[in-house]
Amino acid sequence: MGENIAYKILRKHLVEGELKAGQPIAIKIDQTLTQDSTGTMAYLQLEAMNIKKVKTKRSVAFVDHNMLQQGFENADDHKFIQTVAEKHGILFSKPGNGICHQVFLERFSCPGDTLIGSDSHTPTAGGVGMLAIGAGGLDVAVAMAGGAYHINAPKVCRVNLHGKLQRMVAAKDIILEVLRQVTVKGGVGRIFEYAGEGVKTLSVPQRGTITNMGAELGATTSIFPSDERTFEYMKAQGREAEWQELKADDDAFYDEEITIDLGKLKPLAAKPDSPDNVEEVESIGKIKVDQVAIGSCTNSSYEDLMRVAKILKGHKVNKNVSLVIAPGSRQVMEMIARNGALGDIISSGARVLENACGPCIGMGQAPGTNGISLRTFNRNFYGRSGTLSAKIYLVSPETAAVSAINGYLTDPREFEEDITVELPEKFIIDDSMILKPAEDGDKVEIVRGPNIKEFPINSALKNTLTGKTLIKVEDNITTDHIMPSNSKLLPFRSNIPHLSKYCFSTIDSEFSKNAKKFNGGFIVAGSNYGQGSSREHAALAPLYLGVKGVIAKSFARIHKANLINNGIVPMTFENEADYDIIDKFDDLEIDNVLDGIENGILVVKNVSKDKTFTVKLDLAERDKAILRAGGTLNYAKESR
Amino acid sequence: MGENIAYKILRKHLVEGELKAGQPIAIKIDQTLTQDSTGTMAYLQLEAMNIKKVKTKRSVAFVDHNMLQQGFENADDHKFIQTVAEKHGILFSKPGNGICHQVFLERFSCPGDTLIGSDSHTPTAGGVGMLAIGAGGLDVAVAMAGGAYHINAPKVCRVNLHGKLQRMVAAKDIILEVLRQVTVKGGVGRIFEYAGEGVKTLSVPQRGTITNMGAELGATTSIFPSDERTFEYMKAQGREAEWQELKADDDAFYDEEITIDLGKLKPLAAKPDSPDNVEEVESIGKIKVDQVAIGSCTNSSYEDLMRVAKILKGHKVNKNVSLVIAPGSRQVMEMIARNGALGDIISSGARVLENACGPCIGMGQAPGTNGISLRTFNRNFYGRSGTLSAKIYLVSPETAAVSAINGYLTDPREFEEDITVELPEKFIIDDSMILKPAEDGDKVEIVRGPNIKEFPINSALKNTLTGKTLIKVEDNITTDHIMPSNSKLLPFRSNIPHLSKYCFSTIDSEFSKNAKKFNGGFIVAGSNYGQGSSREHAALAPLYLGVKGVIAKSFARIHKANLINNGIVPMTFENEADYDIIDKFDDLEIDNVLDGIENGILVVKNVSKDKTFTVKLDLAERDKAILRAGGTLNYAKESR
Repeated sequence: MGENIAYKILRKHLVEGELKAGQPIAIKIDQTLTQDSTGTMAYLQLEAMNIKKVKTKRSVAFVDHNMLQQGFENADDHKFIQTVAEKHGILFSKPGNGICHQVFLERFSCPGDTLIGSDSHTPTAGGVGMLAIGAGGLDVAVAMAGGAYHINAPKVCRVNLHGKLQRMVAAKDIILEVLRQVTVKGGVGRIFEYAGEGVKTLSVPQRGTITNMGAELGATTSIFPSDERTFEYMKAQGREAEWQELKADDDAFYDEEITIDLGKLKPLAAKPDSPDNVEEVESIGKIKVDQVAIGSCTNSSYEDLMRVAKILKGHKVNKNVSLVIAPGSRQVMEMIARNGALGDIISSGARVLENACGPCIGMGQAPGTNGISLRTFNRNFYGRSGTLSAKIYLVSPETAAVSAINGYLTDPREFEEDITVELPEKFIIDDSMILKPAEDGDKVEIVRGPNIKEFPINSALKNTLTGKTLIKVEDNITTDHIMPSNSKLLPFRSNIPHLSKYCFSTIDSEFSKNAKKFNGGFIVAGSNYGQGSSREHAALAPLYLGVKGVIAKSFARIHKANLINNGIVPMTFENEADYDIIDKFDDLEIDNVLDGIENGILVVKNVSKDKTFTVKLDLAERDKAILRAGGTLNYAKESR
Repeated sequence: MGENIAYKILRKHLVEGELKAGQPIAIKIDQTLTQDSTGTMAYLQLEAMNIKKVKTKRSVAFVDHNMLQQGFENADDHKFIQTVAEKHGILFSKPGNGICHQVFLERFSCPGDTLIGSDSHTPTAGGVGMLAIGAGGLDVAVAMAGGAYHINAPKVCRVNLHGKLQRMVAAKDIILEVLRQVTVKGGVGRIFEYAGEGVKTLSVPQRGTITNMGAELGATTSIFPSDERTFEYMKAQGREAEWQELKADDDAFYDEEITIDLGKLKPLAAKPDSPDNVEEVESIGKIKVDQVAIGSCTNSSYEDLMRVAKILKGHKVNKNVSLVIAPGSRQVMEMIARNGALGDIISSGARVLENACGPCIGMGQAPGTNGISLRTFNRNFYGRSGTLSAKIYLVSPETAAVSAINGYLTDPREFEEDITVELPEKFIIDDSMILKPAEDGDKVEIVRGPNIKEFPINSALKNTLTGKTLIKVEDNITTDHIMPSNSKLLPFRSNIPHLSKYCFSTIDSEFSKNAKKFNGGFIVAGSNYGQGSSREHAALAPLYLGVKGVIAKSFARIHKANLINNGIVPMTFENEADYDIIDKFDDLEIDNVLDGIENGILVVKNVSKDKTFTVKLDLAERDKAILRAGGTLNYAKESR
């Protein structure tokens, strides 16, 4: 039986393991990307590895998140990243050059290559047939240092696209339809590979919208074939030399399959507060709209903005609507400025924001109280807009623009003017805001502002662990409980000492103080501990505060990996009832830890209660080695 | 002896008093403007006056300050202002339409009219020969309600302009030269009237730059003649019907006179941390620059941006510089988008921000630690950029743009390309973002978000005042001590109950709590109490907390007016040594207050110390009436 595209790329990059769904494998990484909110930590970790120059084919550092700059911290972080990049052989995309995923698609994406990026929407580059995966900053740092990327080989789901979209139905509506069918949990452990004759009807930017928002499925990544249209796009970007054809074998194996008839698709919207809460726009009805926001890595391409400009041309934004538009990159911005489309956008009464992530990551444009906001973004989680009472609908740029004119949610098929957009034969190519690294990195001095602190690194695992139970929490604790993130704390992502003061602060304001007082200890938790985002800081802050292990009923997958990466021992109760025999501040003692790691079983003594109980450790061989070494950084040093 | 322009306008609008420098007068106000950070309070005050429709010839409500919108508060304020404007006959300039002073100059400025605005840079409109004065929100509300504006008639200083600017020397350099000569305190109680043959060499936008930054002299306002060039500008704005010629009589009287030889002027910069710390750019030297910011109400006109675009065209911003550019209005933005200049700006690597006040009022773009930032703005006060360690230099757009390319402070005369800019014969005129008020205001419902709280109104003055000494402070207490303003508190400018919790918080964290506990009382202060900004909130918060009077060695002028406006009695020690016989929490009692107000003298009994002392009240007749009524709002109601 033949192979699908995803497995062809995986096989070509396989370094360790058997390429079989569910099995641990390691793959070689060709390219990496970082953005600024995760990047400072990734580069601090890279520095800790003592690598002179990155070993990837290409690594790019972007600045696109923290661009409002309300204090010195953001500009300091930008400068730190700029100088680290210059020193260590990394390309640096200056603030103002655009959103990482849009710029990467335009200037660096490469069919058949592997990419990991410290941002969950890294799969955007799957639009050209690149295997592009979002990962933690430390994994990206390891890849830059030449290490492989470790995952369990995913299943592959074939998404058959039949037919052709009706006019005013968009790529966004395709991924919203996939979300409706699969749900936000349905993609876990899977790659979504697009196929069928509908593929060739979609441009690369449209494909990028789909692979980008595939992240909302919980998927490992999404990927399109690389075909004629991919070639045209890359040629228009002056990069046809990097093109190669990629298609699945005719008899390729897929674990699963879903089918979408493009011709039957109607404009869709994801209603509050989940990207899979999808309904047809016409059935939601003409609800009054207060704000419309166009942009983000999902829908800010030249093609998207041109369609929006053609809709807005000659019309005015409704007087009760605030329409904000943030183009995805400087290339998009310059092209629409040069061809008159930006003039049409401004003339309509739209507010043009800087090309950056902006409101999609809560950097401004919070709606008013009870505000209804239509957004072309990828997430409408509760509170993410900055306004708890706001109602966020995710829609296509077409639906957004037509609704902004009318003042109410509108099926864009009602708009009858022609808005056909052709991609240019040649984009404006100007990489002058992408700074090349120094020839001689030794001469570059890294600029480290006062907010950039050293981050904690664990030491080799001890054979006996003792300490107090610093906190005892319930089921379903999220990374937001462990390490809150908000506009107040976001500038401190490179300052673990400061950030750690707020560790668990929403549920126990004394946690940080107690952890320091007792010189660290243990966390005791219920089931699904650490669910939510991939935030490494939810492991780094506890590490800084001296946490040695977490005993839980069960762990969320990524957080468990982050604990292991940082040398904190993740243990599960053999008997869940033992959760009840531990109270806050009980003294715990674990002996023979090194043997226990090897055998997957440990005995914990509750000294305060004079009782013992058994905990299990579900660890791959590599995990054991990492824990023994005291985290991935130490392990990587040892392994070199 | 003939009359100068300022006095011609004052005489035409005189309602009360003798038009003689230093004497109290009242003038009729033709137009008003507000911006959003002061506007919500001004409109709450207008509502309290129970006026159906404003009585001015024209009142305009702008939104240009709080546009980052990091929580629901800003959008709520915008909506409140929009609906109040619609109800009460006020034009509403939507967020995204531009900076109030730039838009006002373009679309509403009118030679010979009077204007007051709740923003200190209102004098910008003096560029067309309008008498335009910055004032407190309550004064603006009173004017909207048809009341006169009360000031002491200022002296007039003639500024003689000789000759013509060299190439690459700018209007900004003229006002920097005036600041060098006069200093930031030298303009108090004065109007600066520009004259001489140099006037006709300056365009209206250039004149606007000069009158705008005249605010930094501490002046009442600045004004230019209205001449042929004014006519051309207004014609290009489609408003020639509102033009009239305005010139001083040949033998006009001026109290003072200064002279500037334009031809000898060189590019200047105001060094940290004061607008009058002025030195020639060439003598400061080629210091390395981290950030360049172009925009603000001082330098964001079409002409400014076109000059900048011509400098940047074909060049790239230095790799170590972040160049941010915020055009002043949607008109400017659309024009430079249509004519290709915006494309040139984007191509250079500049970051284009929304047309709004932006970094000039601390809304983003704080420099990094120890960052050097060149800005075309009007203020470089310590900390105003958002970064305490940053060094801010105020320069012309020409100096800014050339320096951004070079990466170091550069005398722009070194740049040899031609950057001549002609004003267009016709600007793009599109007032669709300026919403007209409703025909029938009764049908408009005001949208009042949860952050918009009622503000406190005093009651008629009692004949006996008693209470505790809530705080005893030293000399030179600023309005920032009384009511701190920062990005955390700025969204709460329409929420006095919340804001008042932070009253005096930087020097006495218990003040608010104590004031509530003791049901209000008195403030005892040293000399120059209430210096700094015109912030009404420094009177409103104490009023909300029950403060009945302030006993000080002396008062700053505007704060004293704000106290009177809010019915808080401002008293000065007859014998300054009596300051020493009061301690915090002493009980004070003042009898026969009503007679005392009339006679200008009161006896205060310190009940705790069993001592008495005498205080004076320096009040005009109108001030006495306002205090008796319990503030201007009550007084205005009584007077109608």
